[in-house]
Amino acid sequence: MALIVQKYGGTSVGTPERIQAVAERVKRFRSQGDDVVVVVSAMSGVTDALIKLARSVHADPPVRELDVLLATGEQQTIALLAMALEKIGCAARSYTGQQVHILTDNAYGKARIVKIDETRIHEDLKKGHVVVVAGFQGVDDLGNITTLGRGGSDTTGVALAAALKADECQIYTDVDGVYTTDPRIEPQARRLDRITFEEMLELASLGSKVLQIRSVEFAGKYHVPLRVLSSFGEGPGTLITYEDNDMEAPLISGIAFNRDEAKLTIRGVPDKPGIAALILGEIGKANINVDMIVQNVAADDTTDFTFTVHRGEYKKALDVLKRVARELKAREVSGDDKIVKISIVGVGMRSHAGIASQMFKALADEGINIQMISTSEIKVSVVVEEKYLELGVRALHNTFGLEKTGQPAS
Amino acid sequence: MALIVQKYGGTSVGTPERIQAVAERVKRFRSQGDDVVVVVSAMSGVTDALIKLARSVHADPPVRELDVLLATGEQQTIALLAMALEKIGCAARSYTGQQVHILTDNAYGKARIVKIDETRIHEDLKKGHVVVVAGFQGVDDLGNITTLGRGGSDTTGVALAAALKADECQIYTDVDGVYTTDPRIEPQARRLDRITFEEMLELASLGSKVLQIRSVEFAGKYHVPLRVLSSFGEGPGTLITYEDNDMEAPLISGIAFNRDEAKLTIRGVPDKPGIAALILGEIGKANINVDMIVQNVAADDTTDFTFTVHRGEYKKALDVLKRVARELKAREVSGDDKIVKISIVGVGMRSHAGIASQMFKALADEGINIQMISTSEIKVSVVVEEKYLELGVRALHNTFGLEKTGQPAS
Repeated sequence: MALIVQKYGGTSVGTPERIQAVAERVKRFRSQGDDVVVVVSAMSGVTDALIKLARSVHADPPVRELDVLLATGEQQTIALLAMALEKIGCAARSYTGQQVHILTDNAYGKARIVKIDETRIHEDLKKGHVVVVAGFQGVDDLGNITTLGRGGSDTTGVALAAALKADECQIYTDVDGVYTTDPRIEPQARRLDRITFEEMLELASLGSKVLQIRSVEFAGKYHVPLRVLSSFGEGPGTLITYEDNDMEAPLISGIAFNRDEAKLTIRGVPDKPGIAALILGEIGKANINVDMIVQNVAADDTTDFTFTVHRGEYKKALDVLKRVARELKAREVSGDDKIVKISIVGVGMRSHAGIASQMFKALADEGINIQMISTSEIKVSVVVEEKYLELGVRALHNTFGLEKTGQPAS
Repeated sequence: MALIVQKYGGTSVGTPERIQAVAERVKRFRSQGDDVVVVVSAMSGVTDALIKLARSVHADPPVRELDVLLATGEQQTIALLAMALEKIGCAARSYTGQQVHILTDNAYGKARIVKIDETRIHEDLKKGHVVVVAGFQGVDDLGNITTLGRGGSDTTGVALAAALKADECQIYTDVDGVYTTDPRIEPQARRLDRITFEEMLELASLGSKVLQIRSVEFAGKYHVPLRVLSSFGEGPGTLITYEDNDMEAPLISGIAFNRDEAKLTIRGVPDKPGIAALILGEIGKANINVDMIVQNVAADDTTDFTFTVHRGEYKKALDVLKRVARELKAREVSGDDKIVKISIVGVGMRSHAGIASQMFKALADEGINIQMISTSEIKVSVVVEEKYLELGVRALHNTFGLEKTGQPAS
């Protein structure tokens, strides 16, 4: 008799048949005696179609009205899933974000959940109903409809699980869990039975697009056990949870990579306080997000400065940087959009020295030159030439023994 | 400076271009200094598509969830219209039925409006906003989403106009007003400048499908001046209002007809109390609606009983009637589904005698035999052979001078 919140994404509810399959799965949990709250996204393609419709009326649709429009996508799914549940004898009630009062701030299109009134849901659960809630949407304190931004349904699921003190929040997707790395790159990649919130945050932000990062933060903050699993299979998925002191954590949990970055360097900048803020300030004003930043001091009182941006903004960033270079009388500006970032992530790093050098040696053994290095408490990232992506990931996967369950080689 | 409620149906907002045309029209009223509240239906085809989607999940969708699903249709239109208004510099705010608290009973799929909280709308109007409200939907006292049934957007418009004490409720459709009769039958048919609520009720129920009958009742009850006009043209339309004592009402305002009826007769039934209730009771139990009812007493203590039903239920009604006839030992049952009902409607009848006989004479002059007659205070209906429909309507249109503005010939 557990209370479980299940979240199904757009692909999982993409057709009437898939909605029926979700209903069958929910029913199996009900039959075991579990209370189930289901959070759903819009059917796949619906949100994009609505955005297209909005743009046919207004090239830059007012955000308040766009949220009113987009919220209909999830509202349709909740009704259809409740119908499918009723059809197989599972009493169900659907609710929009407004109806269960998912209170958010009023940042239309990217609202944040402030509070959820769980009274009505508890009442329905007590009556034996499955409660189906629209993901991605809420309501501000004036009753305006808001949306949480792309992937916001994950956040709705976790926030509901936190408010309801659910035993588990299950995120159903089209993959069956979190892997040590992308199986398309490394066929030996292995599904992790469990991973910590911190590791998941690093993996998610580095490009393992399994879960929306805000939902992981939320789950970590409110201690909601989060499970990623497939809506098409029956496996146990991956449990994302706090570090378990009883068991020795593996050194490295996974290898992430990101092909969407480009690197820019400005050389021979006067090495004085405020110079980094000045350069990055100009980049920021151009609305370009910066990822990795590395600075080295040269011998002649000048400094070299390298950073990465999204590849789509490479040209724009290069133009800004050239202008800044002229103003600062910097020696040289260069860039490269044929790079890739590879990262190893693992909480085990905290208590084990030498992980970084083990990583660098593995890459060197394959003749891969490292262009940038950046480290955090549980992560080491390197930038290498794009053509070394597969080779680098496989070498690291093998070095840290990720294909094997249990303790890694070291 | 008037307060106007405008309602646009599904065809009027059927494409992004048409939504933009509606926005332009609203803007013209705003530019004159009017306050405007707009009620919209779902884009044409959307509601049907949603019903189809529901049936693909559940052959007989639960009514509560069907309402949640269908309400998304109007919600999409309000957002799109508000965007179109903002685009042309007209500040606008969209609201669902739930957001402006259109309180209804909880009869899902056919809910009735109980109360509207107009505070928020007045506040927005004061700020100079156009308020766009979703038609067809409301919310019950537990916060469940309800819908008013097909054509319910007209009712939303009128109810809002009543709550806001609007100066006029304008219903935009694909016709440019109420006509003296169907122009496809009588090319001389003329648009009426004005008509009374009572006449409109009789015309609507008799088959002039311009306005939803509930909305006319509502407008009459709350003294809301109602105007029917075209969303594609610029004419003044037809004003539906209370009888104006200052001006002499025309004898006859319009001629309605209904081809969807069939006639059934049971002859030689014992003429005793309760017999009509017994016969019609059996028909009612079979869920068949009866329209006209005529009873004649014969000389031999038996009675003949004739009534009309919807043509689609003719066979079913005939079967019921035959069974009843056996039980009552009636002499004979007969029927005819090749009939048509023609009605003349006009409040002027109240104060003028001889209208009915003038009607009968006009039909007789054309050699049209009358099979049934039924009268009310402001209406005379006859049933004639189907083939006489056009001839009968034209003869009556001419007899009562409906092609001419002002007073009729008499």
